[in-house]
Amino acid sequence: MTGNEAGRRPTLAVVGATGAVGTVMLSMLAERPDVWGEIRPVASARSAGRTVRVRGADVAVQVLSPEVFDGVDVAVFDVPDDVSAQWAPVAAARGAVAVDNSGAFRMDDDVPLVVPEVNADQLAARPRGIIANPNCTTLSMIVALGALHRAFGLESMFAASYQAASGAGQAGIDTLYDQLATVGGTRELGQTAGDVRKAIGEEGLGPFPAPLALNVVPWAGSLRDGGWSSEEFKVRNESRKILGLPDLRVSATCVRVPVITTHAVAVHARFARPVTGEEARAVLLGAPGVAVVDDPSAGEFPTPSDVVGTDPTWVGRIRQSPDDPHEIALFLCGDNLRKGAALNTLQIAELLVAGQAGQAASTTS
Amino acid sequence: MTGNEAGRRPTLAVVGATGAVGTVMLSMLAERPDVWGEIRPVASARSAGRTVRVRGADVAVQVLSPEVFDGVDVAVFDVPDDVSAQWAPVAAARGAVAVDNSGAFRMDDDVPLVVPEVNADQLAARPRGIIANPNCTTLSMIVALGALHRAFGLESMFAASYQAASGAGQAGIDTLYDQLATVGGTRELGQTAGDVRKAIGEEGLGPFPAPLALNVVPWAGSLRDGGWSSEEFKVRNESRKILGLPDLRVSATCVRVPVITTHAVAVHARFARPVTGEEARAVLLGAPGVAVVDDPSAGEFPTPSDVVGTDPTWVGRIRQSPDDPHEIALFLCGDNLRKGAALNTLQIAELLVAGQAGQAASTTS
Repeated sequence: MTGNEAGRRPTLAVVGATGAVGTVMLSMLAERPDVWGEIRPVASARSAGRTVRVRGADVAVQVLSPEVFDGVDVAVFDVPDDVSAQWAPVAAARGAVAVDNSGAFRMDDDVPLVVPEVNADQLAARPRGIIANPNCTTLSMIVALGALHRAFGLESMFAASYQAASGAGQAGIDTLYDQLATVGGTRELGQTAGDVRKAIGEEGLGPFPAPLALNVVPWAGSLRDGGWSSEEFKVRNESRKILGLPDLRVSATCVRVPVITTHAVAVHARFARPVTGEEARAVLLGAPGVAVVDDPSAGEFPTPSDVVGTDPTWVGRIRQSPDDPHEIALFLCGDNLRKGAALNTLQIAELLVAGQAGQAASTTS
Repeated sequence: MTGNEAGRRPTLAVVGATGAVGTVMLSMLAERPDVWGEIRPVASARSAGRTVRVRGADVAVQVLSPEVFDGVDVAVFDVPDDVSAQWAPVAAARGAVAVDNSGAFRMDDDVPLVVPEVNADQLAARPRGIIANPNCTTLSMIVALGALHRAFGLESMFAASYQAASGAGQAGIDTLYDQLATVGGTRELGQTAGDVRKAIGEEGLGPFPAPLALNVVPWAGSLRDGGWSSEEFKVRNESRKILGLPDLRVSATCVRVPVITTHAVAVHARFARPVTGEEARAVLLGAPGVAVVDDPSAGEFPTPSDVVGTDPTWVGRIRQSPDDPHEIALFLCGDNLRKGAALNTLQIAELLVAGQAGQAASTTS
């Protein structure tokens, strides 16, 4: 009998199991290495009585309570900030490690902010028993930028995002589909100021501050100092923390586009030394979690609808600035519900129990 | 009798009168100050026999020939590069000033590249008898950037575009409407890699190298050195020429988005001296041709579908970098068929004949 067969397999709680990211997480759990014993779906009282599919079986959703974390090794959270702020510490107090995908803990000095391909070494020290998962926009680019930083030394970066509706959750998805159903059959809309807004009506805006169909909306999140959006500050502050570069210059403009799922980002990054397009491409081709598609003359570059539902960070349009040999421009796409949320969270959870197994093994050997 | 009433009013030829931009041009001519005597619509042999509306009347389209420019004071061109390259010099040889909106002459040292609000002084010297009109993406930002440059001294800039389908002409408009009709009623598309591409079919791509509905496409134009697109080099080289800054560092990523008309651009610009958001806003509020909409907490920022069909360059999201006091970020929108093409061309044409009237007056006085 091996040690693995002898040991209890760990228990995973999925908090927010009925949401857009929770649904993707449960679907991914059926496909990934089966490291978990029990998988316990958890949601708010609103989802009481519902069942969800867990590895092919219907499982009743448990309502969030302190007791729901008893016997749980890792609890992954995809719920609003205030719910995480309340319940992740409860899970930790009951002995689980909480892996949280809200913004509640990301900038807490006592909470590591982890992207396994970039800073898995940060997982070990977790004084609050909480690990934070980065924002989906940061995650759509940081694996590739981490690889380039290790090779060339990142000094500053500009990022302009092309963010999908599902970044605003199921309400964002539903709203964009509703708006497209309204504008899809009308061949005149989008040619006169305000006609799309009038066609969908004020109640048709959903979670967005302006129409998204036939439009782009230069706003995501809430207002921060100096006219910046919270989303733009997340890209800056989280990139700094993940890369371990507290003074990194990051300037971002975050824009919502009429795409269902998969965020894209145009990045222009400056490095400590000159970097040719070929050098950058070679590093990205060898980087775990990165897929390179970069032959524009053959129509090959990543686009959101061509890569949605996949795991890697897709990179194309890799090119050196003609004006500054230290600058590389790139176009990146990442599924915001997978690597941008569910996948990164599950990768962290799996590393945590792999670590526990390792610790247990070294303790008993 | 005043001098104006005594003089022959000038003749304008509109070459490409049946195209997307030509159509907007004729519609704008019905609204603008009526400085023209004859307005002569001209197109290729493909449009022989067609009529177009000119100031409320049906006028027969004349087929492109040397004789069509006889008696013409100003000939505005919106036709493919190769057609302009052939015919603009013919118009000039026949005594017309050619104002060309193709890429054929923009970087010619003997051809001024003019945005009236920025460098109208360049109109006077035109050794080839040709004036070039900038690319629509450059025009969606350069009026505002010109004003900021005059005030603060532009040193470098990063631009990421959100370009409308109509930048690819009527075929672009038709393609996006067709694609939206296909995806508009289907609530599952956009969630699986390649499903949009499959739904619209290879023949449904139209002028774009990837699906545009439910997607963004990081490519416009043709391949240039080092993996850059011709559109990105246009933004760089035309900005340099218009602003008179031959060494300006400009780094652009040009991306097509599923919007019918109006290009948007996220710009992060660095100036010779520190610039606060308030200082930048004050300059833009006083700049001709610029409209400021900038109160994100009230949902006020420019979006393409809210400003399409209008003349100004719309600017919002004006903010100073928290990491570099010399850097200002902005989000700009400009109707690519109006200021981005038809309007700027007509403004140049009107300045040319105002200049001619002035010259004639000073000669006879």
